[in-house]
Parts: sequence; C-alpha cells; structure tokens
Amino acid sequence: MTVSLDDLRRSLFTAVLSDCLDAAGHRSQAMQARVRPLDDSLVLCGRARTALYMDVYDAPAGENPYELEIQLVDDLRPGEVPVFACGASGRIAPWGELLSTAARARGAAGAVMDGLTRDVRAIREMKFPVFAGGIGPLDSKGRGKVMAIDVPVEVAGVRVAPGDLVFGDADGVVVVPRTVEGEVVAAALAKVRGETETRAALARGEKLADVFRRHGIL
Amino acid sequence: MTVSLDDLRRSLFTAVLSDCLDAAGHRSQAMQARVRPLDDSLVLCGRARTALYMDVYDAPAGENPYELEIQLVDDLRPGEVPVFACGASGRIAPWGELLSTAARARGAAGAVMDGLTRDVRAIREMKFPVFAGGIGPLDSKGRGKVMAIDVPVEVAGVRVAPGDLVFGDADGVVVVPRTVEGEVVAAALAKVRGETETRAALARGEKLADVFRRHGIL
Amino acid sequence: MTVSLDDLRRSLFTAVLSDCLDAAGHRSQAMQARVRPLDDSLVLCGRARTALYMDVYDAPAGENPYELEIQLVDDLRPGEVPVFACGASGRIAPWGELLSTAARARGAAGAVMDGLTRDVRAIREMKFPVFAGGIGPLDSKGRGKVMAIDVPVEVAGVRVAPGDLVFGDADGVVVVPRTVEGEVVAAALAKVRGETETRAALARGEKLADVFRRHGIL
Amino acid sequence: MTVSLDDLRRSLFTAVLSDCLDAAGHRSQAMQARVRPLDDSLVLCGRARTALYMDVYDAPAGENPYELEIQLVDDLRPGEVPVFACGASGRIAPWGELLSTAARARGAAGAVMDGLTRDVRAIREMKFPVFAGGIGPLDSKGRGKVMAIDVPVEVAGVRVAPGDLVFGDADGVVVVPRTVEGEVVAAALAKVRGETETRAALARGEKLADVFRRHGIL
Amino acid sequence: MTVSLDDLRRSLFTAVLSDCLDAAGHRSQAMQARVRPLDDSLVLCGRARTALYMDVYDAPAGENPYELEIQLVDDLRPGEVPVFACGASGRIAPWGELLSTAARARGAAGAVMDGLTRDVRAIREMKFPVFAGGIGPLDSKGRGKVMAIDVPVEVAGVRVAPGDLVFGDADGVVVVPRTVEGEVVAAALAKVRGETETRAALARGEKLADVFRRHGIL
Amino acid sequence: MTVSLDDLRRSLFTAVLSDCLDAAGHRSQAMQARVRPLDDSLVLCGRARTALYMDVYDAPAGENPYELEIQLVDDLRPGEVPVFACGASGRIAPWGELLSTAARARGAAGAVMDGLTRDVRAIREMKFPVFAGGIGPLDSKGRGKVMAIDVPVEVAGVRVAPGDLVFGDADGVVVVPRTVEGEVVAAALAKVRGETETRAALARGEKLADVFRRHGIL
Repeated sequence: MTVSLDDLRRSLFTAVLSDCLDAAGHRSQAMQARVRPLDDSLVLCGRARTALYMDVYDAPAGENPYELEIQLVDDLRPGEVPVFACGASGRIAPWGELLSTAARARGAAGAVMDGLTRDVRAIREMKFPVFAGGIGPLDSKGRGKVMAIDVPVEVAGVRVAPGDLVFGDADGVVVVPRTVEGEVVAAALAKVRGETETRAALARGEKLADVFRRHGIL
Repeated sequence: MTVSLDDLRRSLFTAVLSDCLDAAGHRSQAMQARVRPLDDSLVLCGRARTALYMDVYDAPAGENPYELEIQLVDDLRPGEVPVFACGASGRIAPWGELLSTAARARGAAGAVMDGLTRDVRAIREMKFPVFAGGIGPLDSKGRGKVMAIDVPVEVAGVRVAPGDLVFGDADGVVVVPRTVEGEVVAAALAKVRGETETRAALARGEKLADVFRRHGIL
Repeated sequence: MTVSLDDLRRSLFTAVLSDCLDAAGHRSQAMQARVRPLDDSLVLCGRARTALYMDVYDAPAGENPYELEIQLVDDLRPGEVPVFACGASGRIAPWGELLSTAARARGAAGAVMDGLTRDVRAIREMKFPVFAGGIGPLDSKGRGKVMAIDVPVEVAGVRVAPGDLVFGDADGVVVVPRTVEGEVVAAALAKVRGETETRAALARGEKLADVFRRHGIL
Repeated sequence: MTVSLDDLRRSLFTAVLSDCLDAAGHRSQAMQARVRPLDDSLVLCGRARTALYMDVYDAPAGENPYELEIQLVDDLRPGEVPVFACGASGRIAPWGELLSTAARARGAAGAVMDGLTRDVRAIREMKFPVFAGGIGPLDSKGRGKVMAIDVPVEVAGVRVAPGDLVFGDADGVVVVPRTVEGEVVAAALAKVRGETETRAALARGEKLADVFRRHGIL
Repeated sequence: MTVSLDDLRRSLFTAVLSDCLDAAGHRSQAMQARVRPLDDSLVLCGRARTALYMDVYDAPAGENPYELEIQLVDDLRPGEVPVFACGASGRIAPWGELLSTAARARGAAGAVMDGLTRDVRAIREMKFPVFAGGIGPLDSKGRGKVMAIDVPVEVAGVRVAPGDLVFGDADGVVVVPRTVEGEVVAAALAKVRGETETRAALARGEKLADVFRRHGIL
Repeated sequence: MTVSLDDLRRSLFTAVLSDCLDAAGHRSQAMQARVRPLDDSLVLCGRARTALYMDVYDAPAGENPYELEIQLVDDLRPGEVPVFACGASGRIAPWGELLSTAARARGAAGAVMDGLTRDVRAIREMKFPVFAGGIGPLDSKGRGKVMAIDVPVEVAGVRVAPGDLVFGDADGVVVVPRTVEGEVVAAALAKVRGETETRAALARGEKLADVFRRHGIL
C-alpha cells in the first residue's frame, strides 16, 4: 500500500470501509457497538499488535502480573495499535493513562480493547485515540492477565490478526484483514469521492430513488 | 390540536409527557434507555412514519435492498419522523448521513430507531435530531430489510402507530397515542407551569414533604 | 479522618482508590460500568445515605408513593450522598431535577443509583454530580417504591452501608467501607504522588519494564 | 363459572387457553419460557394468591424473615396457588419441600414463581405441581423478603391479580384475568373439541392448506 | 453420498460430526446450546427446508398469517426437516402438535427452530424429533410471520442453506454444508470406529496421555 | 473429618449445606442455576481439582491443545472432582464420554464445569455425576485451553480452591471451603434430622407459623 496510515486516517471513515469490506465478502469486520471511542472527535488508523487476556482469580506473590502487557507496550513501533482481547467478563480496565503515555512515547496510533479503560479524563486530554468496551476503575491485577501476544484474537466479535489494519472513528471500529487490504482501501478511497456528489443531490431535494438509481450509493 | 409541533417542541419535555401519559393510564410509552439521542441538546417533536425491518442473511442479485426504505423517505412530509423497528439483533445501522440529508430536505423532524446509526459526526453537524439504539458502521444490505411501512410496530418496548406523536430529548423518547393526544398534551402544558413554582420552593430550601403536599408534584 | 471531604474530592481519583481498596483486600468496591456520571467533569465525594427500592405494580389510591424517598432527602446533611438501590428492572427514573434541587439545598454532595435519572439537561446545568444506571423519563410511581432507608444495600454490584465513603468521577464510582477508610485514603493520597513521577518517566520514553521495576506502579 | 377447577385441569391445555386469550385481546398472558414445571406430566389449575418479594441485603436479628410468606401459606384454601413475584435477581429459592408440604396440607393446587425452587426431588415425589424460574439451593433469608401479599404483581412478564385463574402444564403457564375468564374458558373448551378433528385429518395426510381453510385451526 | 439418511442417523453423533466439521475448517456449525431436543432419546437426520420469520405487531383482518408456513409444510418430502429462523425475540411458538402431525404425514425427519415449541407432551408421544429454543404456548399469529421460504437463514448462530444436512441428538444440532458433506460424513464414520478402541483403553485404566498419543482422539 | 465422602453423599443435600454455609457467614457458595446435573438422580460429593480455561482463537500446529487437561485427569485420585472454570463464552464442551471414562477409571467422584458437556447419553448410561453449564457438541480445540491447574478459580459465581468439598444433587452445586468444612458439615448433619420432624408436623396440617416457631426451620 503506497498510501500512508496518516493519509488514510485523514481520508477515510469506518462506515465507508465497512461497506467496502462487505463488498469484498468480509462481512464480520465491524466491532460490536459496545466498543466506543473515549473521544468522538479522534480518528484511529494503525496496525494491530494483539494481546489475549485470561480471567484469573488470584495474583501469586512474586509474580509480575503485567509481564506480557509491559513487553508488548515496550515493543510498540510507530503506527501500531495495541488490540486487547479481554473476553466477556467486562469488569477489568487493562488500559489507562500510564499505558497511554508509554504507548504514545513509542509512536503508537491508539489502542482498542473490548475491556474497560480508566483515567479517561487524562487520556482525553492527551488526545490519544482509545476505543474500549466501557469505562471503569478496576485494575487487571488478580482479575485478568495477558497470556499471549501477537497471536490471532477475537475482539468484540471481530477476528484480529497481528498486522491487520485497524480503523476507528465516532462510528466504531473496523478491522481490514491483510489479504484484502489493498482492494478494500482502494475501493473506500473511491467511494468517499462518490458520496460527496450523492450528498449534494440529496441536499438539493432530489428523490432518494433517483439518486440511488444514478449513484448506487446509500 | 391547535398547538403546533414547533410550539410543543419548545414547551415540553419527555419527562412531563411521560408523567401525563402515566396519569392517562398509558404506562408503557417511554422507549427503553438504550435509545439515546446523538445530540443531547436537540429536541424532537413530530408524527411517526413507521418501518418494520426483518433480519436477512443474503442480498439476492438484482434486488434493491433499500426499496421500501427509499419509498418511505421520499414520501416524508414536513413534521414527520421515520420510526424504524429494527428488532433485537442490534447489528445494523439503517440510518446515516445520506438518509438524514434526504429526510431533512423534505422537512422531516428527525428520526428514531432501535437499531444503530452511522455517520454520526456528520449528522451532529447537521443538527438533525436522531435517536438510536447505538452507533455502528454496518450497512443493512444483506443483513436487514424493510418489509412493511406505515404499519403498527414496536420500537424499544413501545408500540408506535403511524401518526402517533413522537417526542424526544436528552431524557429519551416517548410516544403519545392519537387517542389520548389532546388530553395528554394539555395536561403536560399545565404541568410544566406547576413545576416552576415547585422548583423555586425547593431551591429556597423548603422541605420536599411540604412542597409535595402543596403541589403534588415530584 | 482529618482530611475533609472537599480535600479528598480535589486530590483523589476512583482509579487510585480502587487500587488501594484492592491492596487492602476489598476487591468488589467498584460499581459496574453501567453506572455513569451525567457529567464527566464533576467529581463526587461524600457519605452514603441508602435507600432500597422494590418493584411494585400498582399505586393504591391515598398512598404517598414517595414517602420514604421524601423523608430521606429532607433529612440530608451537608456532604451526604443519597445512594439508591433500584434493582435490576432498569425502567424507572427515581431521580430528577426536583430531587437534585432539594438535595443541593441541604448540602448533599451528589447522588448515586443503579436506576435511571431524568431531567438530565437541568441537572447538568446545576453542576450537581449524579451517577446513574442510565437516563430515562419514567417516574417511579406505581413501578417502584422505597421500602427502607439507611440500611445496607447493594448497588451495581457493590455493597453500600450507611456512612460509607462514596467517590465518583469520569471513571465510575467506588465505595470505601468505614473499616478500611483511614488506611485506604492514606494509601491513595500517597499513590497519587508516586504516579506523577511514573508518568513523567514514561513520557520521556523510558521503558515500562524499567519504570514498573522502579516504582511498582502501573 | 360452573365448571370446576378439577374439570378444567383435566380438559384444557395452556396452548388452547393462550389462543383463546389472544382472541379475546389479552395477548400478554403467557409467562416467559424460563418458567418451567418441575414435572412435565403434572397440570396445574387454580386461583392466584400473590406475594411480592424485595431483594434485601441483610437479615436483622430478631426479625422473622418469612413472616408474610408463612402468613400466606397458612391462609391458603383448596384450589389456590401461591404466585411469587421474586424479581429479576434469579438467585433465591423461596419455595421448597416444607412449603409444598404445608401448601398441599391446605389443599393448594400447586405453586408458581419466577424465582428458583429447591428440594426438587422431594417435591417431584409428592407430585405437587410447581412451576419455577429455575432450580437452586439458596434460601431467601437475608436475600429476599415478601413485602406484600394479595396485591397485583408481575411474574415472568405477566400481570397476576389475586383470584386470577392460573393454568400450567408442560407448555408453561398462562394467567386468565377474571374479567374474561368465562368467555375464554368457554372458547377453550370448544376449541379442544375442534382440534381433535383437525388432527385426525392431518394424520390422514390431508393438506394443511385444506384443513386450515375448513377448520381455521393451526 | 451413497449412505442413506437412515443409516447416518443410526451410525453418527453430533459430537463426532462437529469434530469433523472443525477439521474441515467449518467451525461455526453447532447451534447454540439453547436449542434442545424435546426428547433426548431421539436422533434427527435430514435435509433442511428453511423458513425466515419476521416479528409483526398486528394481524390484519382477512390475511392468512400462516400462508408461507402452510405452503412449506404441505410441500415437505420424505427426509426433509423444516428449519425455522425465528429471530431473537424468543416469545413465539411457531411449531406444535398439528404441524408435527402434518409434517410426519409427509415423511419429514423432524423439525428445528430457534423459537419455541408447544404441545410438547403430544409431540413427545408421537416420537417426532423436534429441536427448539424453548417451550411456550404463544401462537405466532400477530407476533411473527414467515416472510420467505427456501432461502439461506441463520438459526441459533449457524447459517443454514436449503438442502444442508441437519443432524440432531441429545448433544444438540449441527449443520453440514453441502460443499463438505461427503468429506465430513466419511471422516465421521471413520472416527466413530476409532473412538470405540479409545474408550476401551481408558476404561481399562490406561493413562489419557498414552491413549491420546496413540489414537489422537479426545 | 471422620465422616467419609460416601457417607456425606448418602446423608446430605445441597439445600441443607447451603443453609449451613449461610449460617456460617459464607453466603456465595451456591453455583448459579445454569449449572445443572446431567442426571437429576445422582449425587456428587468429592474434593475439587481445579482447571482454568482461556478462550483461544487458533490451534497452532504441533501443539497439544489438551496438555494440562490430560495431566489433570491422569492425576486424579479417588474421591476427587475435576472442576473446570470455562469462563463466560458458553460455546465449548470441554468434557465428554472419554474424559468421564478416564476419570471414573481413577475413582473420580464426578465432574463440575460452567462450560458445556457432550456425549450426554453415554455419560448418563455410565451413571457418572456431571454438572455443567449446558449441553453442546463443540470441542475445545482451537476455542479454549487449560492454562493452569490446581489454582483458585471461579465457577458459575463461586470461588473454588483445590481441595474444597464439592457437593451436587438435583438442586445444584455448593462448594464448602476447607476453613469451615468441619463446622458446616456437622451443622448440616444435625439439620437433616430436624427437618424430618418439621415435615411430619406440616404434613399433619399444623400451621407453618407454629412449626417454624417450634423448630426454626423453613
């Protein structure tokens, strides 16, 4: 792909990418609606670095409960996005201000998780794009633990492989698998241009039926 | 009703209408709390135009998947509100910027659905009042389809008949059936006046018990 | 405790209190993520006054359905926080503008409930910190009734006893039991100071692994 | 009604009563499918005696936590059915072998609740018809308490008033309000006779379309 | 496939088919656990005839609400299985004794639905294999309606196309897509033979580790 | 404890143990009602051997996905009970006929899990007491994996430590922590004797109020 992640972030929308993924036959690429941005004005575009959590019920003394999590964040490269599969428990907040600070210092593009996030006022002030399954204060220590990094995971109903393109904005998060990335991104860039014309026609009061017949866009 | 929809929009609140519907014996007229406004500062007041969705699992070639949806929107008259019953699946976003643009061009007062909405930043910029069961990017094509328009439906737990008065603000959405509209609206306009006095008494530090005994309002 | 509630409100965060409660062995003190502030910029710190609701299915004539609720609010003292256990039904809004007005007039620090709240625009304008399980217009009359006040309750998964310290901000709500309040508050005040240094080190680009080894904070 | 409860129990089915309630415009009279009989071979037909539970979080010393429950069971008359509205918590088992024994000794026709039941092997041996929202061992003491008896309640989605006809069999539980009892029971007795002919025609291999046209029963 | 449906029914198990579908890369072919047999002793093996339901909220006079449902059942051929996609509402019972009688008269192998079933005692007496999302008395009239037959549907999480092999027993229901039917059925028949030896070795007390190393079956 | 596990199995009931655990201040020891026995006539009494599952999304070639599971079962001693914490996903069936066969060969008393079980007809024929969160055919390979054995876990809402007494019958499953085992078992054996007298008095028609006053048992 010759278009940079930054250009994509400025040009695209999750809704358009979602339509193009549909057209390419990948119809389960939008995370469930419970995953929301902390800040609706920010756009996220980057490559997935995955982590897989397990619910645990104690924190053995002498064990570092954050070992793999720290390893993943310390290893982030510019444009990458930590994507955390936290499972269905919905109680722990594996992400917060300190991880946001560390991730941004390495050039990460944002973070995505189906678990909760905390320190949300501080993260909003940083303008760091975080998409989460909710907001809450409970630390993961003794409740959940990363057991594997850089493996295929499932987050809010979507399979995410390491390196997949992750795109998020006020409409939610979509994941573009590598195998169709070129095709889908090209189609999305084209569709964005088409929608401008459609919108103008509708704003002038033209019938939807006519505009849809002409442009095939809805 | 001699009061215009615009006057009602400026004078009333969902909470007051809900209380007056209760008093009139209609106690299931408030949509479930999952239906939220995209913009808490906007108020919606209009007459329902209903659409009933079915979950589908393919999009046969040559079929226009949006046929009835387009027909409904193209037929909207000033002050009307598309009300979409999308069912419990919670995955599709049948509404977006283009439909908002087309609906506003016809004078629609807003839109209500228990499904998702997309293009939410653009819709917020339009100041078009949309109330939805969530936010997400997935198009309805091949996932859901309007099978009937202008029929009685159920949206987020409330029965809505074509022509019913639909009122929405930051507190949610209530539906006023035609049979009690005159009575309920008159009572609501009266109650709004009574609350001002109650509020002032409480702000002065009077006991709730005394104020409630005097005004019967809580 | 020699630190005033106002000082705590200005110095602490739910996330830090939650970590210190964990360390003290109290690991179920954060309300479920569905309890959210009406206004993310407000912080709540006060002492719990509890009320226990029961779902009811009629409102017998001649009965005051708000009797105990009124009694609790009229009896509030400065720094107290009504905490309403409304149960799992999730349909009623026992709190609104009038109760907020009355509570504030008595010096209440805010309100917390797992039920819904209404009149949210007015409450936001008052800058009164309310944390609720959602937003909706349905009054409790004939749907739910306070059956006991000043008893132990459970709200959004957390046990709350009368007099417990209740702390809420954009990250949610935590409850500090009296028995550990001194210990937990002291630890939280200390931890807040430690995090500043950690944050600065991470912002400078130090490795998480190194910073965590040095400060033990994540 | 001149037909005895025993005759109804032997002649009717919940499915037929449900259809006749539908025809009479009462379309929300079947309890949700989570309410199941402990024994699919037993049929329940009786008159509701209602109890309304509240979730509680402690059991004050010196208080009898079963006071109203005991009062209701001791007051049962032949043909009556305790109907317990236990709410959505789904954790407590307010009914068991001892209450079944006491209820049967007074001629009760069975018991219905949306909460759990325990001692199910013993109750099955007694052939006492109990319909419950599940099976579990947790006593109600300190978890739930009857706050009112002989009031209108809602159980598994159905409103039940004292004296309503309650009918249960392997298909679930329906409630027939007093106001339509005569009409609905008469229609149900007639429909049972019609279904015999329909079933015979279908077993002979006649087309459903023809049989439905002739009998109007499906 | 040269093996008859009857032979498959006698030789196979859903668990073995599920493992072979997994091995063939089809990993979403087992319906969710809420779909249960009415009778755990019966086995179902046949070819899917699909119907797609929509929730409706009235039954217009003069309309036959069962039109497509009747058409499907009257058109069943020996070995076929009506498979009803009833959606997430979980309130209606589209299947009962009369449809079972009509379906059996045409040689149908059973029926599968994610909705409810009624008349379950009569259906059990018929020994007709029905797998359903629950048991309840509510008829579909005015609540749900078949809008399409013989189209691809999704039932309890599994995509079902007309003609797919449907297999059900006490462990649940699996669906074998046509494209892999030959491969999967052959593998399943082979695996059934292998399990006998494994079971015997384990019953003799051999270590799981040894037996699994030798047979690769668990 | 001088009473053998076999004697306890013959003398006790989950309901009685649950009441005695309540009295000892351990009020969260009954698993949620979704955990049900495969066979209501069997009673389970043994000591927990725990396993903790993680949801996974692929099965790397060359890896034995059952490694720790096999290790645990091969290491079972007479009277032990594998207790599997499978998490909230509810899709996989980690237990089946082969594991039941291997476990019984080592003298295991049964098995408990919040996940699904398969091969249920065969397991019922073996009369091996299995308690599970449901029934389904999906193997755990590539979906879930044991990550730790003999650690504290949480199963269906109850904390289980290795060695805890696990008791199951038709009413569900309770877990007795080691620290209170002697006290709770002794109290339960005494309560069983008291209930016989209470039952007889109620069967004779005595008032519940009188019997409860005399025996304090309900």
